[in-house]
This record gives sequence, C-alpha cells and structure tokens, in this order.
Amino acid sequence: MNVSYLGPKGTFSEIAVINYFPSNITKLPKSSIEDVFKSVQELEVNYGMVPIENSVEGSINNTLDLLSDSEVVITGEMELTINQCLLSRDTKIKSVKRIFGHPQSLAQCKNWIADNIPDAELISVVSNTSGALSIKKSGDACVGAEIIADYYSLEINKKNIQDYSNNATRFLILGTSTSTATGFDKTSLLIIPPNTGDSGSLYRLLEPFAKNEINLSRIESRPSKTKNWNYVFFIDVDGHIEDKSMQDTIDALKERDVEIKFLGSYPKNN
Amino acid sequence: MNVSYLGPKGTFSEIAVINYFPSNITKLPKSSIEDVFKSVQELEVNYGMVPIENSVEGSINNTLDLLSDSEVVITGEMELTINQCLLSRDTKIKSVKRIFGHPQSLAQCKNWIADNIPDAELISVVSNTSGALSIKKSGDACVGAEIIADYYSLEINKKNIQDYSNNATRFLILGTSTSTATGFDKTSLLIIPPNTGDSGSLYRLLEPFAKNEINLSRIESRPSKTKNWNYVFFIDVDGHIEDKSMQDTIDALKERDVEIKFLGSYPKNN
Repeated sequence: MNVSYLGPKGTFSEIAVINYFPSNITKLPKSSIEDVFKSVQELEVNYGMVPIENSVEGSINNTLDLLSDSEVVITGEMELTINQCLLSRDTKIKSVKRIFGHPQSLAQCKNWIADNIPDAELISVVSNTSGALSIKKSGDACVGAEIIADYYSLEINKKNIQDYSNNATRFLILGTSTSTATGFDKTSLLIIPPNTGDSGSLYRLLEPFAKNEINLSRIESRPSKTKNWNYVFFIDVDGHIEDKSMQDTIDALKERDVEIKFLGSYPKNN
Repeated sequence: MNVSYLGPKGTFSEIAVINYFPSNITKLPKSSIEDVFKSVQELEVNYGMVPIENSVEGSINNTLDLLSDSEVVITGEMELTINQCLLSRDTKIKSVKRIFGHPQSLAQCKNWIADNIPDAELISVVSNTSGALSIKKSGDACVGAEIIADYYSLEINKKNIQDYSNNATRFLILGTSTSTATGFDKTSLLIIPPNTGDSGSLYRLLEPFAKNEINLSRIESRPSKTKNWNYVFFIDVDGHIEDKSMQDTIDALKERDVEIKFLGSYPKNN
C-alpha cells in the first residue's frame, strides 16, 4: 500500500502516517498539499495524509479550498499532539539570528520566540523540513518536530516551545471511495447557500440538521470566491451519508436551493 | 487627529486610512497589527486601521484573536479593492528569481506567479513594504500596492496580478468609545458557547437572533484555545447594541450560559 503525505521527510504529516497506518506501507512525501490531493486523485497512491486544522491556529485554508475543488473523499481522520522544537546545527539559543519554519509553526511559537529571541528574523518557508534544509550558517535555526533532528543531523536547542500546551493538529486521510458505516461516523459536507445576499440564512441552513437531530461538530466559513462577502460553509456532522436522517436533511436543503458537495463519511477519531 | 495603521509606509492599510479619513490627520505606521491595537488602547492615537478580511483569502486570524483579547472597540469599517502589482528595481519578469511579499498577498497571486514565473522562490515577510525593502540584487522582486513604487523607487513590472479580479479587503477602524446609532449600523460580537462539548448547539446559539429578526451577515469560528476542538464565534449582525431587539437577544443568550463580548457597533460600509 502506498500513502502520500505533505513532505518532505520529517513533517508532522509523516508522523501522522506512521501512527495511523501499519509499518509495512510505502510512504511518499509530496512537496505540497495540492500534490497530495493530485497523487490520490490520479491513483498514484491508495491514500494521502494532509493537515486540516490546528487546535490553536485554526483551519488550514489550503486544504479546505482543495477539498472544495477536488474529487477525492475523506476516508478517515486522526489527531496528533504537536511538540515544536527549536533546532540548529550547534548554535546557542542566544546567538540565533534567523529562524526558518512553516508560517503556522512559527505562529504557534510566537510568544516563546518573542520572549527568548526577540531580535531573531522569522523566515516563512513551505515546510518545517524545508526550514531545516535552509540552515546554512551560524545563527540559523528552525522550528519543527523532534524527528527532524535525526533526519537532518541537527541539535535540539529546546523542546516544547509552542505557546499553548494543548496544541494538536487534526489530519485527514484522503482516498477515492467512501468508507463503510461503522455506527460511529462523521460526515463532512460543503454547503453552498443560494446566492441571495441574505447571509442571515445560516440559521435556516442549520434548521434541517436540528430537525433531524443531527449533531453539528464543526462549521467553518470560507469566501465563495465568486461574489465578494458571500460565503460557503464546511461542516462536520455526526453520522454516515447513508443514514436515513442524513438523506432527509440533504433533501430538505436541496429543496431550499442549497448546493451540497459530499466530502466524505468516515470513522470518528475518538 | 492621530491615526495608526499596519505599516510601514505603502501598505494597503495606509491607502485605507487615506481614503477613510480627512487629509489633515497625522498617520502613524506601526510594525504589527498588535502594535496598532496597543496604540489605540494606550491612547497614543485616536483611531487605528487594521485589515480584518479578504474577499478571496478569508479572515485575518491575527486581528480576530486580538479583538478577542483587547479592550478596544470597532468604530467603523471600510472596503478597499486590492490591485496587486509585481515590482522590482529593473528586472524583467522572466529573470525574477525571488519574490518577497506578505503571505496573504503572495497567496492572492499564486496562480499568476505559477503561470508566469514558476521557478521563482516565494519569500514571506511581515508586510509588502518590508518585501520592497528586501529587494537587494538583480532577480529580486516584490508584490504589493502601486503606491509602493513611488515610496521605494521601484518599477511596476506588471499590474493586477491577483488571481481573482473581485479581490477586496475589508478594514476595521479601532477606537475606544462606541459610535452612536445612525439607523444603518452593524454590531460585532464574540460568542463563547458554554463548555458543554455539545457543538451542535450552534443552531440554538443562533435561535435568539432569528427570533428577534436580527440578520446575521457573517460568522467566523476560531479555536477557543482553552480546550481542543472547542470554538468561539465572531459574528456580525445588523443593528446597534442599544437597539431593544439586540438587548433582548443578548439577554436570551446569557440565560443559556453563553458568554458574549461586545466588539463594537458602527455604521455599515455600503
């Protein structure tokens, strides 16, 4: 079995793959979330692993937008506690001048960096591993997972530098066919309200879910990109797409001219 | 009158200040959104101008989080159409090797850059103006407003390189006292649901607004940061905080153990 993930080697996505899948799979790092989606859609791999949401920083907008445009489905989810480290070749914390990292990882360590290395220049790169590879001279450092130290022969200057101790990232497993119902499932839907300009309609959008007693566990709005200040909604609800209550809800929404894109039904994480 | 804005000179925030305020004010650039909030709170300035939302990229999470933690209020809003340019010292588009820019500006031009300068390295910096100042050698370029060319003696290589033509940013004007009602107002609230783990309560959260016929124009969820996968909601509704229907709604929410933070009532933009 082949599994692609947001690489390169040493990302939290790779750790998610190691924890979720059996050890005999083949792991394929990809250089962007787009490329993970593409590898799943073009059947280069059986599954793909991408981050969707961090408990402190919020949604990964890129993943949301790709879910909206792609034909892959979500087949699972998993949660990973994030331990950010400051890594370098041998630099002492006080002499660090530049810190490379993914913008979200840098954001997660914002207060610690401001308190301990206030003058360091923060340089955003596409991944923490790309940050590790950017370390060229004395004074260079990067943020990222402990595993990066092994892969790229770096020293760990300091562990757990994230500002919130309850820092976790939720990952999605992407595939091409819907998981069968387990009785303890979650369904992700993209809801596109009719273009009426009446944004107050959100309450009415949620009504069919409430009437069918379907619990909503998450809602995220994103710009519709077709008309300014119009929004689409990514929602997660309890249940499987084949449940009668889910079908009744979707029928009721369609009667209200709401467009719905099914993003996947999959076993709940906890 | 003194007005601070997300600087340095040449940012879209400065253009927002120029368009919103009379010309005889004193403009004070600040190096971060945090510092704009601070200058308003500590009465160094009368007002501050910060971006809150882009029509394509979505919310500015940093501004949302600062609204939640700070004591300043929103006293107005304004919208600015964004025209992103590629700027450099004299480099031809084809020989550009590095492009500096604010992550959101770079994201707004993602497709254009991939189509026209696919091999360019994208370097995220704190502002587009800081991007302009990063231009050091041949092959360096930056993205940003036309006005940057004047301020920093750069050439405009190409105008309107944003991927979506309907690209606009909404700005908030921050102050310390609530604007009086004009009859055509908007109110921003931070809604913190009771910590029940029943996130399906969003429908019930919105019920008092619907019952009081208050139109909801926007909802944005953010991690609560106190417990993983719990959310708080930033909502914009039509009306002024002193309206009876608004007070009735807030009373009904408080009865349901919902915590509410008033973020401001202010004249609607259009």
